[in-house]
Amino acid sequence: MSTSSRVVAEFAANLQFEDIPAEVIRRCEDLLLDTLGSIYAGSTEPPVQKIAAFAAEQGPADGSAQLIPSGKKTSPYFAAMVNAAAAHMVEQDDLHNSSVFHPACVVFPPAIAIAQDIGASGKELLTACVVGYEVGIRVGEFLGRSHYKIFHTTATAGTIAAAVTVGRLLGLTTEQMQDALGSAGTQAAGLWEFLKTAADSKQLHTAKAAANGLMAASLAAKGFSGAEDIFEGEKGMGNAFSQAPRADKLVESFGERWALLETSFKYHASCRHTHPAADALWKVMQENDVKAEEVAEVKTFVHQAAIDVLGAVDKPQSVHQSKFSMGTVLGVLAYNGFAGLDEFEHALGDERIDAFRQKVSMTLDPDVDAAYPEKWVGKVKVTTTDGRKLDALVTDPKGDPGNTLSRNEIEAKIKRLVNYNNAGTEDDAEKIIAWTWNLEHGSSELPL
Amino acid sequence: MSTSSRVVAEFAANLQFEDIPAEVIRRCEDLLLDTLGSIYAGSTEPPVQKIAAFAAEQGPADGSAQLIPSGKKTSPYFAAMVNAAAAHMVEQDDLHNSSVFHPACVVFPPAIAIAQDIGASGKELLTACVVGYEVGIRVGEFLGRSHYKIFHTTATAGTIAAAVTVGRLLGLTTEQMQDALGSAGTQAAGLWEFLKTAADSKQLHTAKAAANGLMAASLAAKGFSGAEDIFEGEKGMGNAFSQAPRADKLVESFGERWALLETSFKYHASCRHTHPAADALWKVMQENDVKAEEVAEVKTFVHQAAIDVLGAVDKPQSVHQSKFSMGTVLGVLAYNGFAGLDEFEHALGDERIDAFRQKVSMTLDPDVDAAYPEKWVGKVKVTTTDGRKLDALVTDPKGDPGNTLSRNEIEAKIKRLVNYNNAGTEDDAEKIIAWTWNLEHGSSELPL
Repeated sequence: MSTSSRVVAEFAANLQFEDIPAEVIRRCEDLLLDTLGSIYAGSTEPPVQKIAAFAAEQGPADGSAQLIPSGKKTSPYFAAMVNAAAAHMVEQDDLHNSSVFHPACVVFPPAIAIAQDIGASGKELLTACVVGYEVGIRVGEFLGRSHYKIFHTTATAGTIAAAVTVGRLLGLTTEQMQDALGSAGTQAAGLWEFLKTAADSKQLHTAKAAANGLMAASLAAKGFSGAEDIFEGEKGMGNAFSQAPRADKLVESFGERWALLETSFKYHASCRHTHPAADALWKVMQENDVKAEEVAEVKTFVHQAAIDVLGAVDKPQSVHQSKFSMGTVLGVLAYNGFAGLDEFEHALGDERIDAFRQKVSMTLDPDVDAAYPEKWVGKVKVTTTDGRKLDALVTDPKGDPGNTLSRNEIEAKIKRLVNYNNAGTEDDAEKIIAWTWNLEHGSSELPL
Repeated sequence: MSTSSRVVAEFAANLQFEDIPAEVIRRCEDLLLDTLGSIYAGSTEPPVQKIAAFAAEQGPADGSAQLIPSGKKTSPYFAAMVNAAAAHMVEQDDLHNSSVFHPACVVFPPAIAIAQDIGASGKELLTACVVGYEVGIRVGEFLGRSHYKIFHTTATAGTIAAAVTVGRLLGLTTEQMQDALGSAGTQAAGLWEFLKTAADSKQLHTAKAAANGLMAASLAAKGFSGAEDIFEGEKGMGNAFSQAPRADKLVESFGERWALLETSFKYHASCRHTHPAADALWKVMQENDVKAEEVAEVKTFVHQAAIDVLGAVDKPQSVHQSKFSMGTVLGVLAYNGFAGLDEFEHALGDERIDAFRQKVSMTLDPDVDAAYPEKWVGKVKVTTTDGRKLDALVTDPKGDPGNTLSRNEIEAKIKRLVNYNNAGTEDDAEKIIAWTWNLEHGSSELPL
């Protein structure tokens, strides 16, 4: 039967390394390196360490897959779970704009775990990751904006992304891949409700998307069947999770459009919904030589999802929550000129930043909202203490495909991430940089 | 804050064995024994064995919790996963009518696994299981009928049920229990789409509800936080999963109403939605001395959910699917006088039963539908080959609280289940019967 899940499964089961443009492979390496840095940085944080402790209790003490950064081994299921929990922790991993989906954190951890388990080559690993991006992004677009209002797309579409990534490495047939889609989709979960009190669920979401997707593909390899039409079926993901599922997006231009190339790097260490306004504020400050203490008021004009995700936070109570506070993020940037992990560590309790936060408002802007999620537009109006009215518009925030990071910039970012909380050393960063740039010709065993 | 999740957490964290009426404890033992039988019977089936193979690959080869029936040990997470996969396999586990939720399969497996892990007493195990029933059933009622149209309530409400069961055993505080609810609810998943092709997802659903709930509670014990208002919050389960969530049901009469007592035993080895009509048909045949071959037509008058769940199956292609075919179930009963596991094994390919199936129709009945889900009413009109028009109405199908099974009937059922596919022996059945009836005074280690 030619359901949309069949079309997705056919692509996922059959994509070959040789079919993928070199540009896509290079960007995939960029994204992988970016993610390894995020895993290092996230690994030291309490929510990740609690998931790691659970994995240590329930999983085997040895195995075929590596935990990052320790290099300790366990089974692929738990390696995928723990590394994926870490990957999204510090809000520095990538984002695909139009699907509002963070593919890296749910694609690379299960890919690496299973690649190590089966001794896959670097080429096989990269091919599988491209499959994960291409499918996961389309599922995010299929579920659409109404989904994202309640569901964490990275968790739901992420389960599918993880399943096809692992399925490709395991060499699933098209039929088995369709089973994997069914078993992944029926496990897909993740609600935004935790944001209100800044609970730890985000790490649980990525951990479980990676692990559940891996399980779905592994079961499919054993002949465990899944729903045939998990996307468009009457009781499938579209009807369950979306008010306006877009089936056309799900199967759009496989092999022609490379959605992986549309993915953005995160430049600021905060929720991606703050980035456009942050860049617009910075533009105002740079172009008009405004200092942080000269800002009297910042009106940000944003898309609805920014209000949905960021609106829950009034006065942030934790470092993590501060990355979801528009006013705090803008204050961190304004006072430091850079909103990186270390800058956020010192923001909470900084009275200047707290005061700055209270000068910032968010207003729904119809034009910005209409452009979203294809474009994440930054629009601000700033009033200075001396009464100047300044504004700026940014259509390609730093890190977006139209304004992407160079390999030098990525390496610099990775070094900061690896070194965050002393998770790793400069030497560790150099090793994983070298490993990644050589991956096409190397193996999936990490130099940990 | 006094959210509904707080009220639920308070009950779950603080219920004491002494607070529970003896009648509830006795019925809990009945249900536990019933479930152990279902686990034996389900353990030999391919979908369960595939999940067990996955668990063997990814989990530890030894641990504190037992797999049933082998007695092999692994970690609690995987014991809960595999035993819960088995518990729902043969469609012989219990059902709570008004929530359309099968509590046993997601409550007992994680309870036993964690009880063994921490060396809990039988009393502690029973107390935790009562918590799981009382909370899980209320969550099922909260999500309601619109939920059940797309979602497998046993999977979704089941994740919460598993979490509070394990949470009670771990001695979570009220605050930690609320975290466990949040982490469980944000993992809740399970779509009915698999029914259309009779895929294996049902076993994945119960396996993962049990394992995910266990993980939620274990993480909460480590201080991993969850959404504070996972039920009624704007981005919580109610808004995500239901068109008409009933918050009043969620917190209804804790400690006064014992929902566990409202649970039905399954008498026929088929989907519960077939039972009322099966009993009504049997009543017609008994009261009028009609033989199977004398039946020309059977019109069943059913509730909408029966059509939703059973309507997907036309001509069943597998034994499992035959249990979801109203016509096949009625044929098995009509020809055998009993619709047990063995009877279904021989139904597929039996031309008489195939012919009987084609004589059976389902029609939505407004009265039957209005009574549902509080009452599962059986209503049939039968035409015989000699032209008689007969009908029957059954308001309490066999196994319902108003028509429950005696301990003798339960023991007989368990012996059949344990012996199914030679999963266990008569001696094994005797041992688990004795273990269960002594549980209040015994330990949680099973005699495997």
